Amino acid sequence: MTEPFLPSGFSYGSVHCGIKKVAGAPDLALVLSDVPCAAAAVFTQNRYAAAPVQYDRRLLELNPDGVQAVVINSGNANAVTGAEGMAATRRTAEAVESMFGLSPWTTLVMSTGVIGVPLPVERIEAALPDLYRRLQPGAAAFAAASQAIMTTDTRPKTAFASGIVDGETVSVAGMAKGAGMIHPNMATLLAVIVTDAAITVESLQAALRQAVNVSFNRISVDGDTSTNDTVAVLANGLAANELIAGPESAGFTAGFTAGFAAFTRLLTQVCTDLAQAIVRDGEGASKFVAITVSGPETDIDAHRVANSIAISPLVKTAIYGGDANWGRILAAAGNSGVTFAPEAAELWISGGSSAGTLLPTLQLVGNGAPLAFDEAESSLRFTQPELSIDLRLGTGPGQATVWTCDLSHDYVTINGAYRT
Amino acid sequence: MTEPFLPSGFSYGSVHCGIKKVAGAPDLALVLSDVPCAAAAVFTQNRYAAAPVQYDRRLLELNPDGVQAVVINSGNANAVTGAEGMAATRRTAEAVESMFGLSPWTTLVMSTGVIGVPLPVERIEAALPDLYRRLQPGAAAFAAASQAIMTTDTRPKTAFASGIVDGETVSVAGMAKGAGMIHPNMATLLAVIVTDAAITVESLQAALRQAVNVSFNRISVDGDTSTNDTVAVLANGLAANELIAGPESAGFTAGFTAGFAAFTRLLTQVCTDLAQAIVRDGEGASKFVAITVSGPETDIDAHRVANSIAISPLVKTAIYGGDANWGRILAAAGNSGVTFAPEAAELWISGGSSAGTLLPTLQLVGNGAPLAFDEAESSLRFTQPELSIDLRLGTGPGQATVWTCDLSHDYVTINGAYRT
Repeated sequence: MTEPFLPSGFSYGSVHCGIKKVAGAPDLALVLSDVPCAAAAVFTQNRYAAAPVQYDRRLLELNPDGVQAVVINSGNANAVTGAEGMAATRRTAEAVESMFGLSPWTTLVMSTGVIGVPLPVERIEAALPDLYRRLQPGAAAFAAASQAIMTTDTRPKTAFASGIVDGETVSVAGMAKGAGMIHPNMATLLAVIVTDAAITVESLQAALRQAVNVSFNRISVDGDTSTNDTVAVLANGLAANELIAGPESAGFTAGFTAGFAAFTRLLTQVCTDLAQAIVRDGEGASKFVAITVSGPETDIDAHRVANSIAISPLVKTAIYGGDANWGRILAAAGNSGVTFAPEAAELWISGGSSAGTLLPTLQLVGNGAPLAFDEAESSLRFTQPELSIDLRLGTGPGQATVWTCDLSHDYVTINGAYRT
Repeated sequence: MTEPFLPSGFSYGSVHCGIKKVAGAPDLALVLSDVPCAAAAVFTQNRYAAAPVQYDRRLLELNPDGVQAVVINSGNANAVTGAEGMAATRRTAEAVESMFGLSPWTTLVMSTGVIGVPLPVERIEAALPDLYRRLQPGAAAFAAASQAIMTTDTRPKTAFASGIVDGETVSVAGMAKGAGMIHPNMATLLAVIVTDAAITVESLQAALRQAVNVSFNRISVDGDTSTNDTVAVLANGLAANELIAGPESAGFTAGFTAGFAAFTRLLTQVCTDLAQAIVRDGEGASKFVAITVSGPETDIDAHRVANSIAISPLVKTAIYGGDANWGRILAAAGNSGVTFAPEAAELWISGGSSAGTLLPTLQLVGNGAPLAFDEAESSLRFTQPELSIDLRLGTGPGQATVWTCDLSHDYVTINGAYRT
């Protein structure tokens, strides 16, 4: 019997295999299903896709409904490591398949950590017997695995959702790790999501794409990703719901079933919680910032403007300093390449505690020019741990929200000496 | 008689008018020509072009060969200030024209400083009599004016060049101010360049465009600029060279004259020196970094890759920390959106003192994978004050060099409390 919210039929294990230098620090995790799963994933668009990303893409082409395990190492990204790196990933997968009695091409591999250093695959192999012994279902093992995949994360990130799909209880559980958030596109994002839903590979891929578009892609710049970014989901079908097989259309415009919609809601919930947790734990982050842009013609344009604000170091340092420098927000919007009428801009801000209590919203800019707002009231909002920025650029239907964090001294400290 | 390298017929003045809070800090400068000049300028592409940028664009349409003065205030950008800001710029120009006995539409205006705060134009007006008394030609007045345009700059930036154009000595002198360099596109860049060359407005604009493309645009992301960026050049013709009137083609493919080429070389020299000085004085910068990318199909693609590396906070913090994290350099290149074969990449680095002495170049990556280089030798280069990064991505003819600086704790400190 597994805990509420944890899907049936999965086990989790984690050990210290010696990739991380700190003695005893867990750096190898395994997620194993009792039975073969439908699997889907989204990957980085970086030209330097790491060896495990290339391997997983190939595996999902070959055997997308027979996946049974995900092995993750932290401390070494196995990226920009050439043919030797590809061989190391293959050897990792095969060693796991051999140790756990799995068929060939059933194990996804993820790696995160420093780029360009050969992966010491022999340490992974040597640790597998210990990992085998430690494997178990349940919340404690899930939590331990979520710790083993961390790099500069200060805390593990997990999320859970459960609901009724076609009359059966379906559970979704996810673990993720993230990193530098100043340019979220350069952070390495790994997420492993497990579910006991019964769903086809095509539907699972469609559901994941929908969920990622409104979660992980809202903390990232479109198409710009790190060498290792991977979000993978395994569905083992043990919830025994009627097999979800929609939507039929790749464009999501037709063929939705109630089951598909219900499952996608659960998956989106887990992805959104994980994405926001990654922002809140951004390297050196002291503040969580939600940026909403409305008024451009399209959601894509709204997203571009919001991203331009979110990645501006001048905006991020001002927020770190609690400085109500709203001019930098407009300048960053003007810098996005999106066409809008500057004189139509309205800027509203709010701030609050991490418990979610927001101060009343304050308008700083109207008709593209500053209003005579109360400086103390404005500064009060900019110094809160949670900040909400709402920029309206006209009356078009486009709308998007992105989440980001501030840029602090600690960010520079962490990234100035990451390898050491 | 003016000093060598200073063009004939210009005077310079600077005072404290009270826009900057520090008592006595110079914050108002004037550059005045004895006679009307041909003028040209390049401006920001930001949607929130500041009031002085909008004013100067209009002035150059109306009276491009009758410009006689440039007035610059620091401490207030007069950006995102609406109709009131436009009126303040106009009033500034008219007050200067009145005080110095100039015709209407002869005075360019530049502003730099905080965004979104009304410009206290009455302080500028009140300081003009004092500015009038202090106006004089010569190097000391030029240097004083270059100080008055600074904001977070730690030192003034000037550059000079002199040479023979059509048998006459022509001089070019420039002063510039810059700011935050992490995203150079968000820095406010102002440059005022004066010359005694005789040149048509069309030729001057063409020469400036050529010079900026290989200087200021190499510290900036194409098309992405701050609210106030302006580079303006005034040519008063007192060198009495034969009037430069080429090139005839806007595309620079035909019509070059020897005089045009000689003048453009001088102008490019001044612009390059100023651009590099801005990078060396980037906010919190402790290192100067030259990034050269070769091998893509076009110069534009090479520039895109070099920029992607130059703006990466992960690369910039690693360089700050003296960390030889070359993997981040390749990852940033892979993130540029430019198509290239990752397995063809070669990465070479060198470093040296600010005196220009470079250590022998060291190859870190070949065939897209790390070489067995000496870690100590690599680290030695990454810890030098001047760093040279050379990335070769194949055998295409594209090539570009950009200059940038590292991202330090001081950058965060400066920008976390800029307004206070």
